[in-house]
Amino acid sequence: SFPGASQTSPLLLGAVVRGGGGTTCPGMPCCPRWAGLGAQLAGSGCARGQPAAAVMSLLLRGAGGARGALRPCCPWGRAASRRGLGCSSGGWGPAGGGAGVRPGRRSLLAGLAGAAAALAGLGLVRRAEMVSREAAEEAADELSRRCGDFMAPPVSGLRELRSRRQDMRSRMEMLIMETQSQVCRALAQVDPGAAFTVDRWERKEGGGGISCVLQDGNVFEKAGVNVSVVFGHLSEEAAQQMRSRGKTLKTKNGKLPFCAMGVSSVIHPKNPHVPTIHFNYRYFEIEEADGTKQWWFGGGTDLTPTYLNEEDAVHFHKTLKEACDQHNPELYPKYKKWCDDYFYIKHRGERRGIGGIFFDDLDSPSKEEAFQFVQSCTKAIVPCYVPIVKKHSRDSFTPEEKLWQQLRRGRYVEFNLVYDRGTKFGLATPGSRIESILMSLPLTARWQYMHTPPEKSREAEILEVLRNPKDWVH
Amino acid sequence: SFPGASQTSPLLLGAVVRGGGGTTCPGMPCCPRWAGLGAQLAGSGCARGQPAAAVMSLLLRGAGGARGALRPCCPWGRAASRRGLGCSSGGWGPAGGGAGVRPGRRSLLAGLAGAAAALAGLGLVRRAEMVSREAAEEAADELSRRCGDFMAPPVSGLRELRSRRQDMRSRMEMLIMETQSQVCRALAQVDPGAAFTVDRWERKEGGGGISCVLQDGNVFEKAGVNVSVVFGHLSEEAAQQMRSRGKTLKTKNGKLPFCAMGVSSVIHPKNPHVPTIHFNYRYFEIEEADGTKQWWFGGGTDLTPTYLNEEDAVHFHKTLKEACDQHNPELYPKYKKWCDDYFYIKHRGERRGIGGIFFDDLDSPSKEEAFQFVQSCTKAIVPCYVPIVKKHSRDSFTPEEKLWQQLRRGRYVEFNLVYDRGTKFGLATPGSRIESILMSLPLTARWQYMHTPPEKSREAEILEVLRNPKDWVH
Repeated sequence: SFPGASQTSPLLLGAVVRGGGGTTCPGMPCCPRWAGLGAQLAGSGCARGQPAAAVMSLLLRGAGGARGALRPCCPWGRAASRRGLGCSSGGWGPAGGGAGVRPGRRSLLAGLAGAAAALAGLGLVRRAEMVSREAAEEAADELSRRCGDFMAPPVSGLRELRSRRQDMRSRMEMLIMETQSQVCRALAQVDPGAAFTVDRWERKEGGGGISCVLQDGNVFEKAGVNVSVVFGHLSEEAAQQMRSRGKTLKTKNGKLPFCAMGVSSVIHPKNPHVPTIHFNYRYFEIEEADGTKQWWFGGGTDLTPTYLNEEDAVHFHKTLKEACDQHNPELYPKYKKWCDDYFYIKHRGERRGIGGIFFDDLDSPSKEEAFQFVQSCTKAIVPCYVPIVKKHSRDSFTPEEKLWQQLRRGRYVEFNLVYDRGTKFGLATPGSRIESILMSLPLTARWQYMHTPPEKSREAEILEVLRNPKDWVH
Repeated sequence: SFPGASQTSPLLLGAVVRGGGGTTCPGMPCCPRWAGLGAQLAGSGCARGQPAAAVMSLLLRGAGGARGALRPCCPWGRAASRRGLGCSSGGWGPAGGGAGVRPGRRSLLAGLAGAAAALAGLGLVRRAEMVSREAAEEAADELSRRCGDFMAPPVSGLRELRSRRQDMRSRMEMLIMETQSQVCRALAQVDPGAAFTVDRWERKEGGGGISCVLQDGNVFEKAGVNVSVVFGHLSEEAAQQMRSRGKTLKTKNGKLPFCAMGVSSVIHPKNPHVPTIHFNYRYFEIEEADGTKQWWFGGGTDLTPTYLNEEDAVHFHKTLKEACDQHNPELYPKYKKWCDDYFYIKHRGERRGIGGIFFDDLDSPSKEEAFQFVQSCTKAIVPCYVPIVKKHSRDSFTPEEKLWQQLRRGRYVEFNLVYDRGTKFGLATPGSRIESILMSLPLTARWQYMHTPPEKSREAEILEVLRNPKDWVH
């Protein structure tokens, strides 16, 4: 079990509970309609430079690069409750309340196992009831099994997720938790000596998040994978801002219950021949006064190389295109262009990177189909990126190449701080978890006055593509 | 003479004319009412990532740290005209036009000397006329003499400045050019091996600037001192934005002739025990439809140490206070507070540094007195800062101290890109000279997830002061 430092698992080198002392969150941040990094999700926690009360931090270290090295067996079972990392019955809306870490709660998994055993011994219920119970148990077991691989207990808690497991909020929360886990495991496999810090934080107004950060590894300079699940009330004005299509939303006393969740990540490698990747997948729900629910998905995956490698660019875009094409051949070209348009550093006349896909306000053809599409996108993250990392992580490089990488990192900072809607919203929102928002910034960056690469150099080659985006697959 | 690489001056190691090829500027940037860095002045040039047509670049290198090491003797005399660095007769307003570098123009100084010689031989004019001419010549000589120390020819050109030498625009342009020169010389003296790049750029819509940048010296990591003089037309909307007091300005066809000029600088040293300084002094004029001129000054000087040194903090603030107190004892406390309020990184709950002075919209008690005050502030820059540099530039430091400096540099980037009004305006203005605006960013910076210095450490000590500003002098 991973949360106990004294457990037999070789994966865990240390476990620290950050914070404490009853830090509280400032006023409810109006939930935004964000894009790009989607940092608001990450940004709706409690800590403000300093750790908040309920932030739980674990240091995980991959061992030897074997598959499953980071696998937290029964992550919030006995060991978790021993350390105060219990599950909670978070909920959506004003009456839901209380999501987050509740120290000292009894393990729900243990409880579930006990209940199942008791049920098995009853022998009194009708056969039909038994069948339905068995199906429910199986589904619950399936849920528990999936949760067993997560980096930390899901924000909403297992009981809550189980009670509404057909609901899109539960399915999306499971998907983003799974994505976080899959990506972290894949990174740990490529960078065996690296340590992941897992911070589980709560948001006083509702919800919380899990931030997984690997810093100063052998392959990765800084890799962060964030999950957030937040809920509460939006003002109509904020709701309008959230949705570019500007649908009229009927509020109750000018307020709208909302729920927003997502996974977002930026991975900065050390080697200048390994590109930086960013991805973000998110889901919104807003409940109108008459009970109508507005919902939509957003997301994207994009690549920022220091040097152009056409083969890598084609592999990356092709993998994303295949994920899109499973659903509709029109999606990839549309979202590829949206990506090029969004990640534009206007004052430089350059894109941040060589693009990928980007979309927002997705609410068609149906909730189910939109979810299936988002799921395909999340499944494409590891295959579109990790092969490129493996291919280049041992490439040799010169000090000049490292310097060019640092200059490009400077541009990354410029985009994120000046243009990224998610980052800007997050920084402007009182009570944001700044450390999760700015996790996207590279460990190091450089600005040099009037740096211009020589013509026909490899530096000029990538600049050309950043100024005039190319089509990588047809 | 400094502009000729083959001249006898040991100061000049190389001279490069950047750009060429007729790059033109995009649409007229509405002139802002800026604050802080005042980067819009710097930001109203032509280059957009790439050098503009008329950008003239010189590489100057201080030799041996002797006073006057960087002294450009007769900087745009014969040698300048040989290299195409002539003076121009720039002007204010729509009819003025044409300021900037005009390759191949005959030296005005040479012309002036000839005219003076001719006059001396006339013997025909009345005594009174002689006296008035002599006074005019003396004043012209005085102007030429002062210009002789500048880093490059003033933006408006010597003829233009001479023709309206009592005008505040000319006096302020002379002051900002002098300030640039004094600061660059003082820096070159402290960092004898360092090279200054001098870029003289023009703005198609009117005016231009001179950017002096020292990069990767022994003492300074990156030091930039910018001068800009820009003019043209403002929309009423832009004019309103420029002035917080919101005076109603009467436009002609919705446009307002304006002139804006300033000197701005950020100096990032290498040694973490030497603080970063920023200063900016600026002057605005707007001409209303009825000919009324609105004018105001703005500016400030502030210090950003990596570690707190109380003696330095007191010296810095005391020097600024003395400059203010010469004019009015109420100025320092007011502008000290304004500075603490302005340089606030809201999402961190920290100030960028330990403050200094900051003011805007200064149009009292009179134009003359306001100018005198600004002059005193500019004269205080070298004495408030250079002694601190000299005191600490040879201090030993640990890798941990360098790392903390890099983390603080990251915060500097956050302030400048997220909050600084000057930088934000500059980046949003089409045709801005981005390289001059972003000259304020450090050469290198760092972002580390959840970095918290230990209690009672020297890192925690400076954080405390950044969170709760102190009064350093009473």
